[in-house]
Amino acid sequence: MTTSTAFTIACAQTDPVIGDLDANREMTVAAIHEAADGGAKLVVLPECATGGWAFTGMDESLAAAESVVDGPTIAAWKAAARERDIWVCGGFGELADDTVYNSAVLISPDGVESVYRKVHLWNTENNAFTPGNLGFPVVDTPLGRIGMIICYDAWFPESMRSCALQGADLVLAPSDWVPNPGQQDMPSLANMMTIAGAHSNQVYVAAASRVGVERGQRFIGESVIAGHDGWLLAGPAPAHEAIIFAEIDPIGSRQERRDNIFNRPLGDRRPEAYAQG
Amino acid sequence: MTTSTAFTIACAQTDPVIGDLDANREMTVAAIHEAADGGAKLVVLPECATGGWAFTGMDESLAAAESVVDGPTIAAWKAAARERDIWVCGGFGELADDTVYNSAVLISPDGVESVYRKVHLWNTENNAFTPGNLGFPVVDTPLGRIGMIICYDAWFPESMRSCALQGADLVLAPSDWVPNPGQQDMPSLANMMTIAGAHSNQVYVAAASRVGVERGQRFIGESVIAGHDGWLLAGPAPAHEAIIFAEIDPIGSRQERRDNIFNRPLGDRRPEAYAQG
Repeated sequence: MTTSTAFTIACAQTDPVIGDLDANREMTVAAIHEAADGGAKLVVLPECATGGWAFTGMDESLAAAESVVDGPTIAAWKAAARERDIWVCGGFGELADDTVYNSAVLISPDGVESVYRKVHLWNTENNAFTPGNLGFPVVDTPLGRIGMIICYDAWFPESMRSCALQGADLVLAPSDWVPNPGQQDMPSLANMMTIAGAHSNQVYVAAASRVGVERGQRFIGESVIAGHDGWLLAGPAPAHEAIIFAEIDPIGSRQERRDNIFNRPLGDRRPEAYAQG
Repeated sequence: MTTSTAFTIACAQTDPVIGDLDANREMTVAAIHEAADGGAKLVVLPECATGGWAFTGMDESLAAAESVVDGPTIAAWKAAARERDIWVCGGFGELADDTVYNSAVLISPDGVESVYRKVHLWNTENNAFTPGNLGFPVVDTPLGRIGMIICYDAWFPESMRSCALQGADLVLAPSDWVPNPGQQDMPSLANMMTIAGAHSNQVYVAAASRVGVERGQRFIGESVIAGHDGWLLAGPAPAHEAIIFAEIDPIGSRQERRDNIFNRPLGDRRPEAYAQG
């Protein structure tokens, strides 16, 4: 299915070095170029791809954070996006309001289009980051309406639902997925939460997860690109640096999704029946 | 893990004959006895286990419906529950308010404990049933706090979340699962939605799905019992009449679930960040 609105999306798995902003900038910019070489119009990078993730406290995460306005990695991503005519979504430690958010930025060839700050902090992240205060912004772009979530957010169905209720066609999910205790002989919970979220919201989801080990914490990779029916278009990627590609059509599929009577997860909702809390 | 609060739960797959209330009563009562013979303290039967499902209109579904007060199948389930000291949850076409709901009943050895009416009607069900008007009731029982959902409800994360927000330890899901288009080499979406719901709410989920073919619609079985971490304790069952068992501990696991910092899907929620609609 190639229409004028279809395009290739990529998820790139990197292995950031904690605190080494220069090395991480270099590897993420290389990933952007690799995605562009592969024909991608949009590439998703992992969570905290700029500075690392396993910080013990805010002092450490502050030292590795940068501003979306004048941070050097954001500037490098903007330059690469402009040079290669590609969109970039990546996770970064965001310096703002005298604190650090676990954020994701969406960059077009023209510059920064949207910033999302992780709403649901996981476990020890609470020591190193401040909870997001921007909700789940969805921006209308030439590629479709795009929302962002980060990693653990996918464990809360409200996250992708919040994007979908605002009209998202596509959710980008920079992630640092870790192994889940008790893994059975089936897809990882990270993958199943992504599939369930895509299917139950009829949105495309592109989740890019990091690999490697940081301060004893192993990351699984397993990046996936899910179609709006939930099934995988690409991935899960292996547990090493890799890049996956898929063709998607967020805008061109709107009519088909709206007219779907087999699975109508937004049209068939009944908010008046739901418990609040 | 055997504590005084642990017990065996069963999911029984039946193949109802549309409109044949007597035959369906006989097969469901037989399933209750088989579950009791296997040591179950609670058995879950499929959706619409009493009268069938693929009705073309309300006239047909009315003819196969019965009241929870004096319906003959409900009476038979109550008698079997009392005789065998077992709890029964089963789906039935409920005659009430001069209409028909796609309902589930929870019966203890002492009688009817709770009724749930399917909130999210799927596709052609809208021709034959009236949408549920009772929300998602959760009842506190000696086995734990129990909520119910039916089939397509699992596609809406709000369903299990509504149960969990009201304190549910265990969600029972009578279902008539159908094949999903594009099935990939991984668990069915029905199974993955169940797993995702259990994991993202830290609740046990017991989903009993019917088998067979009714008016051209095939059902997949694949009943599962998921632990509060999402992983399967039993199933997926094969695509024919079958019964699966697992030991669960809804009450005894409360402390462990509350103290879990790896996955804390209720404690880490941030309702103020969620889009409404």
